[in-house]
Amino acid sequence: MIELIGHETPVPARQPHTDGARGTSACTAPGRQRTTTILHCPPPPPERPQIAAEINDRLAAWLGAIGLGSAENIAGVYAHDPGRGITLCHPGSEDVERMTAAGKMIVAETAVDDYFCETNSHRAADDQTTGPNLSLAQSAIDAPCLTSTYQARWEKHRDNSPVLRAQHDAFNDLKQISSPAQAQRIRHDIAQLYLGYNAENGWRTINRLPPAWQYLANRQMNSFRPCLTLTDVLDGYEIPAESYAHPLVQDCTARAALIATLHNDLASCEREIREHGLPFNLPAVLAAEERIPLDEAFIKACDVHNELIQALEEDTERAAAALPDPTVARYLLGLWSWIAGSRHWHFTTARHT
Amino acid sequence: MIELIGHETPVPARQPHTDGARGTSACTAPGRQRTTTILHCPPPPPERPQIAAEINDRLAAWLGAIGLGSAENIAGVYAHDPGRGITLCHPGSEDVERMTAAGKMIVAETAVDDYFCETNSHRAADDQTTGPNLSLAQSAIDAPCLTSTYQARWEKHRDNSPVLRAQHDAFNDLKQISSPAQAQRIRHDIAQLYLGYNAENGWRTINRLPPAWQYLANRQMNSFRPCLTLTDVLDGYEIPAESYAHPLVQDCTARAALIATLHNDLASCEREIREHGLPFNLPAVLAAEERIPLDEAFIKACDVHNELIQALEEDTERAAAALPDPTVARYLLGLWSWIAGSRHWHFTTARHT
Repeated sequence: MIELIGHETPVPARQPHTDGARGTSACTAPGRQRTTTILHCPPPPPERPQIAAEINDRLAAWLGAIGLGSAENIAGVYAHDPGRGITLCHPGSEDVERMTAAGKMIVAETAVDDYFCETNSHRAADDQTTGPNLSLAQSAIDAPCLTSTYQARWEKHRDNSPVLRAQHDAFNDLKQISSPAQAQRIRHDIAQLYLGYNAENGWRTINRLPPAWQYLANRQMNSFRPCLTLTDVLDGYEIPAESYAHPLVQDCTARAALIATLHNDLASCEREIREHGLPFNLPAVLAAEERIPLDEAFIKACDVHNELIQALEEDTERAAAALPDPTVARYLLGLWSWIAGSRHWHFTTARHT
Repeated sequence: MIELIGHETPVPARQPHTDGARGTSACTAPGRQRTTTILHCPPPPPERPQIAAEINDRLAAWLGAIGLGSAENIAGVYAHDPGRGITLCHPGSEDVERMTAAGKMIVAETAVDDYFCETNSHRAADDQTTGPNLSLAQSAIDAPCLTSTYQARWEKHRDNSPVLRAQHDAFNDLKQISSPAQAQRIRHDIAQLYLGYNAENGWRTINRLPPAWQYLANRQMNSFRPCLTLTDVLDGYEIPAESYAHPLVQDCTARAALIATLHNDLASCEREIREHGLPFNLPAVLAAEERIPLDEAFIKACDVHNELIQALEEDTERAAAALPDPTVARYLLGLWSWIAGSRHWHFTTARHT
């Protein structure tokens, strides 16, 4: 039922992106032409390097405690620098405990991706364990209610699997600072994230890129959404569950999640092409679909981002007008803050160079 | 990371199950020994054959309208008899519109399974489209917010795909009778259902059954949960989102969903073994894991069911005591009604004989 388009774009030479500038990011496409374009976005918040470093140290110690503290993983934390990402994306949060809880969630979701999904040293391209393992990862944040015998076996397996333990442990911390409705919302976002991982795994297995519309629809699920929707948890308030579920707020959330995730696609484009045979990012998908050079596709991907930003401006205005509740306004502002922090972090972190 | 156990149990000869009796179901295991056991469960509600027939007729007409009206599919509706299932599982609902909306959701979820997941005439065992297709099926109930160009392409694809259209159409009807929070809750349940489908697809592809604890953990997601949690929607009230998300209510919902789904495993055990090389049901999993005959495993599966029923009794008491809200009490009663209807329907429908 899917029209699949083969990836035939040559891998470009490595080209550095330019740094972000206030209010926009000047993006230089990889490849020969090196055309420059602009990513529309609000300005980045101030840096908080001491808090960021403290979060990173806590995350590294935690990885060691749960059995994921290999030298490679610890180095990965400091290169990835999630502490900086969190301080930039949650400028309203003053609480290191809460920010560390968010950091653990990011690290755990990344571990699920690295160990259960990505084709790398941890697993072969043709294994079929992704579906079963992602089901376990979801159970790790939404404990099954089995009989006592099988419950004990499940818990034993979970505690002996560092990746499942990471996800379980991180979510336990999150539950301490969330209302049940907030925790349930994050479970939902993660279930959709893992549906997105499963889809990407299917494409990787057959070594094909999907058409752009399908890539984007999946990217809205396989996204930073579970991080964005922590905005009220980290800032210490709660958008009521009914307001969160309102279709206009849902539209804003979905679109903001896609935008923030496209920052990843744009910033990591060259690294992914360098590291993987089949890069999964919007420029690569557009290049394959339209049979154009990657640098041209990169500019088109920036245009997609900018059109989404404009649509989010309209969505936000509509939602704010329809729901004159201060927690809704604060939540919507939180989405924009996340985008601004995400864009700045992605284009200046060592992970993507 | 998964310990996989091969399926080595011989396929038993077909043996009919006995009918349900008031308060319990006498279950006869398939195979030579034909031991009989009891399924503990509340008594079934009264039959409403006229309403059931009306729902089935509406569902058959709808399948025709959306392009899924093959003779096989229409015959499937009348054999499956979802109208009867819904009248039995929602004894408090008097509204044929609402019950039909629930019926459309069941039919759509079954179509997703039949066309995107099951190994049958619709797809080969080794294709890799399940992950990407389940991502689309989720998008069909949770519309992506793309740019205008890609949004139009996605909608065109959805409208040209009868399975996606079924899921989209059914959910649109559901939104008409649900609050946004209720609709959001069903989206969450379906995302987890599809995570469960993905896991089962992984096991089918490698032709292996998982250990029982893992099968059960996945079965709690790959379950009737999206049907059970419609109980307040169909009865025309709403359990508040905060109460629904309460951990004690979540425990009841999760356990009730697993119990109701085990009725399917027990009732369809013989049919599945007849029709599929690798039957995915609890008796088959237990037979493979413990290397025991299927009839013995069937009795053990009934014991698992009965232990879960007892645990649900305790869960229910705990939740009702902690949350003295009449909508919570009504919701918990709705879960029990669903189980009672499910057990009765499964052991008396033509689909499973």
